[in-house]
Amino acid sequence: MPTFTMEEPLRLESGHLLSPVQIRYETWGRIRGDKVVWIFHALTANADAADWWSGLVGSGKLFDPARYFIVCANMLGSCYGSTGPASVNPKTGRPYGPDFPRITIRDMVTCHRRLADHLGIGPIHIGIGGSMGGQQLLEWAASEPARFAYLIPLATNARHSPWGIAFNEAQRMALRAGIRSGDAEAAQMGLEAARAMAMLSYRTYQTYKTTQAEASDEEAYHFRASSYQRYQGLKLRKRFDLHSYYTLSQAMDSHHIGRGRSGLEQALSAIESRVLAVGIQSDILFPLEEQALLIRHLPDARLAVLDSLYGHDGFLIEFKKIHQFVAAFLDGRILPHQRNGNPARSFPDAEALPGSETF
Amino acid sequence: MPTFTMEEPLRLESGHLLSPVQIRYETWGRIRGDKVVWIFHALTANADAADWWSGLVGSGKLFDPARYFIVCANMLGSCYGSTGPASVNPKTGRPYGPDFPRITIRDMVTCHRRLADHLGIGPIHIGIGGSMGGQQLLEWAASEPARFAYLIPLATNARHSPWGIAFNEAQRMALRAGIRSGDAEAAQMGLEAARAMAMLSYRTYQTYKTTQAEASDEEAYHFRASSYQRYQGLKLRKRFDLHSYYTLSQAMDSHHIGRGRSGLEQALSAIESRVLAVGIQSDILFPLEEQALLIRHLPDARLAVLDSLYGHDGFLIEFKKIHQFVAAFLDGRILPHQRNGNPARSFPDAEALPGSETF
Repeated sequence: MPTFTMEEPLRLESGHLLSPVQIRYETWGRIRGDKVVWIFHALTANADAADWWSGLVGSGKLFDPARYFIVCANMLGSCYGSTGPASVNPKTGRPYGPDFPRITIRDMVTCHRRLADHLGIGPIHIGIGGSMGGQQLLEWAASEPARFAYLIPLATNARHSPWGIAFNEAQRMALRAGIRSGDAEAAQMGLEAARAMAMLSYRTYQTYKTTQAEASDEEAYHFRASSYQRYQGLKLRKRFDLHSYYTLSQAMDSHHIGRGRSGLEQALSAIESRVLAVGIQSDILFPLEEQALLIRHLPDARLAVLDSLYGHDGFLIEFKKIHQFVAAFLDGRILPHQRNGNPARSFPDAEALPGSETF
Repeated sequence: MPTFTMEEPLRLESGHLLSPVQIRYETWGRIRGDKVVWIFHALTANADAADWWSGLVGSGKLFDPARYFIVCANMLGSCYGSTGPASVNPKTGRPYGPDFPRITIRDMVTCHRRLADHLGIGPIHIGIGGSMGGQQLLEWAASEPARFAYLIPLATNARHSPWGIAFNEAQRMALRAGIRSGDAEAAQMGLEAARAMAMLSYRTYQTYKTTQAEASDEEAYHFRASSYQRYQGLKLRKRFDLHSYYTLSQAMDSHHIGRGRSGLEQALSAIESRVLAVGIQSDILFPLEEQALLIRHLPDARLAVLDSLYGHDGFLIEFKKIHQFVAAFLDGRILPHQRNGNPARSFPDAEALPGSETF
């Protein structure tokens, strides 16, 4: 997988100068001639969109390399090849760890923009991303209101909510409890606890009821739902850096496309792209009202509501429905929301999409 | 506050013999002549119901000592005067800590029943409790189907859900991360993290949006919602024992009134009390479907749905609405649910309660 190494140091939003900075990225298709699709990954994913979005990216899929030039870059602060807390701090010769500077979603977008320059990419045909990926997408669009022809933010928001920040803080408290003693195993256990907590925000009561119900009426001490939480924690621990998790969680909290732009409404109103916001009915972390807010202020936007058993995680699971929505949008089959109209009435009509009952 | 010391050792559901066992409790009113009200407290509360339920217990309140003999006992395993992990283990002369035996909701009820015998209480006129308090109430009623004339479980369930267990496990993972190194401060930080996580299950997106919104559009690093989480963690740390928290959280997971009783439906069907189940519309931890399940199987039950900004915590906050519902119920103004009917239709009609729009 290629790596882009910046020639200039990166001036962070905090004022701090970060150097060196490298961004790991992946591309699919031919850079010359085809329209560009930029895919943004979420918190713990990586640049290999054909892996974590296997149902949407690849030959014969919605985003087909035969048709588009597709880019996905590992976000700044992550541990999958881009500069982050697991990278070597040139001042010490050791990984930054907790000394990595505070970064914001805006800093990540600065990296994406530099990578686009490096690749010789001008206008971007489609920008798409869910959750924290959608936050980067919206931040980029706010910083360059004419850059994207089509924007598809999924299960995301224009500003991170107090609720989302509180979920992240609870997780950071678990990380700090683990880190505090200097015991390496305790620190990893803190990461496991943080992930177990996060899983609850990604799923719902119904998800656990359906997938983690106890088989027996007689068990009083050992439960399937408990094992599942521990398993999820362990799985992340094996593949993710705990300081990177901490840093990215703080970056998510910083997300606010209206900061320094006279507020949220102003920033959204300036975006010239044609937008499909996708919300998930059962998402408790980025609830529908956040996507409804997007389309209230974006000049050319419509909202698709996806039904899923999986809550927020639906954007990583419901390939078929997402494909259906996005294809209809790109074909011009979903009419825009009427500004100043009733947002509830402007949701696309179910009849507009054959076979879909979930709009 | 009086303490009841058991003469006999307590045989736990696990088979373990616990001794000595003492139960701290409080009473209000005269034991002779008046009808008995038994109040059950939730996870981190105590026997002083006139304190944590100040709007409902006391002179001139719904539960008035001039009218009732009122009892509230600190649950087994807690750290407010009853035997628990903070108590001295007679074998070592030091607090049990993590060596306290596993206990269940059923073990707590065994203690309540022994306390009732000790006080000379036979039939109980009203049993009432929210959340984990409601779990004890339902367990007691299942073990003695004719003991209570009126049962009022609030924001609770007949069996703890996979979702609830998963929330508890994530919290225990934070506790274990803190405990692991032997560093006392780290252990306390684990308790803070667990409490911060729990707060999210007790409240909602709307609660945080309304009470913890950021005042400024320009802040990127320090958020009110984060401070709030840390504050809540610290507040619990100052008043609660972390091993007690761990033990009680496991006991909550054990809750299943159908265990050893041929299942949930059978256990609920046997209960002879007149029941008002109170559910909270915005409760994500004990959602309405759990109270709807109660009234589907209880022979004489009705459901009141309370609207609250505070989610699950509504049962500790919405004194006026709870008073209104319970008073109407005790006066016979809420008709029972028709068994085999449509539960949605059997909710009490708003018109039955003047001034209430929240049924």
